[in-house]
Amino acid sequence: MNEPLCQILDIKIDDHVVRDDMERVRVLVTQCGNFTPDEVDMAVELVEARLGQGDKSGYFFLFARLPSGRLAGYSCYGPIAATDGRFDFYWLAVTPEYQGSGLASRIQVATEEVMVGIGAKRSYLETSSTPPYEAARRFYTKVGYRMDGINRDFYRKGDDRCVFVKALVEE
Amino acid sequence: MNEPLCQILDIKIDDHVVRDDMERVRVLVTQCGNFTPDEVDMAVELVEARLGQGDKSGYFFLFARLPSGRLAGYSCYGPIAATDGRFDFYWLAVTPEYQGSGLASRIQVATEEVMVGIGAKRSYLETSSTPPYEAARRFYTKVGYRMDGINRDFYRKGDDRCVFVKALVEE
Repeated sequence: MNEPLCQILDIKIDDHVVRDDMERVRVLVTQCGNFTPDEVDMAVELVEARLGQGDKSGYFFLFARLPSGRLAGYSCYGPIAATDGRFDFYWLAVTPEYQGSGLASRIQVATEEVMVGIGAKRSYLETSSTPPYEAARRFYTKVGYRMDGINRDFYRKGDDRCVFVKALVEE
Repeated sequence: MNEPLCQILDIKIDDHVVRDDMERVRVLVTQCGNFTPDEVDMAVELVEARLGQGDKSGYFFLFARLPSGRLAGYSCYGPIAATDGRFDFYWLAVTPEYQGSGLASRIQVATEEVMVGIGAKRSYLETSSTPPYEAARRFYTKVGYRMDGINRDFYRKGDDRCVFVKALVEE
């Protein structure tokens, strides 16, 4: 059980996006197994938008990189337009070998810190009500998010959207 | 009271986006008076994204044009990524002189028809809980939307997000 923890110590988290990250995100998100091909494409398109438009894209990233350059995990977030410091936490994904290692919560904490650094007061995230996302819902609850509403059949019939929110600063 | 109705007959609705529509949308949305400068910029940016990336932008438009070329109203909508035929009805705006003329509901009906033509099963829209948006909330309820949840303080403290949904086809 020590091995993954040692490996975590070799992981560097940075916010610099390069072209190869499109393919790295595709590999990572596909490995997760949870996501539909559409969702995988969507994850990659956000990296592409970032590369093309920079901050103006509205998408910001943290990458947890192994010494090999491969990703162990990543997050994507950005301000919600026309709100007072509300941010969307779009993606948080960790490869299966790092699930349960503590890496996800390290990335989540780091993401919320950088969000606050650029003006975030609240973090919102959306996830599915279906069983494959149960671990994700439990994780978010554990790290301080509360469910702020369910939109029934939002993704498709039988697949609801759960909206979670976390206050990052006092208001 | 006949005059606005006659003018409506001169209004042509089309879905063709040209560069001048950026400025026309800015003028229209500013005239509405409801929207913050940030929101006005956001409305214009969606037109710009459409011009740059076409369908790939995810933003589609209907423009209600006066013979002069000026806009009497417009709508913006698009598919919600990774959902089964869920669409976002991002914007519906009509100049003050056409409010109450029936133009808004003509644009809304036309928008939902073209949405269904490209695969929409449900239309979602989001609006503020604050008094300036009361007429909008009443309008959407009248034309078949139901409130599907409120996210408290979503836009800013004291300004909630109301999520509305309308089924466009049987599922």
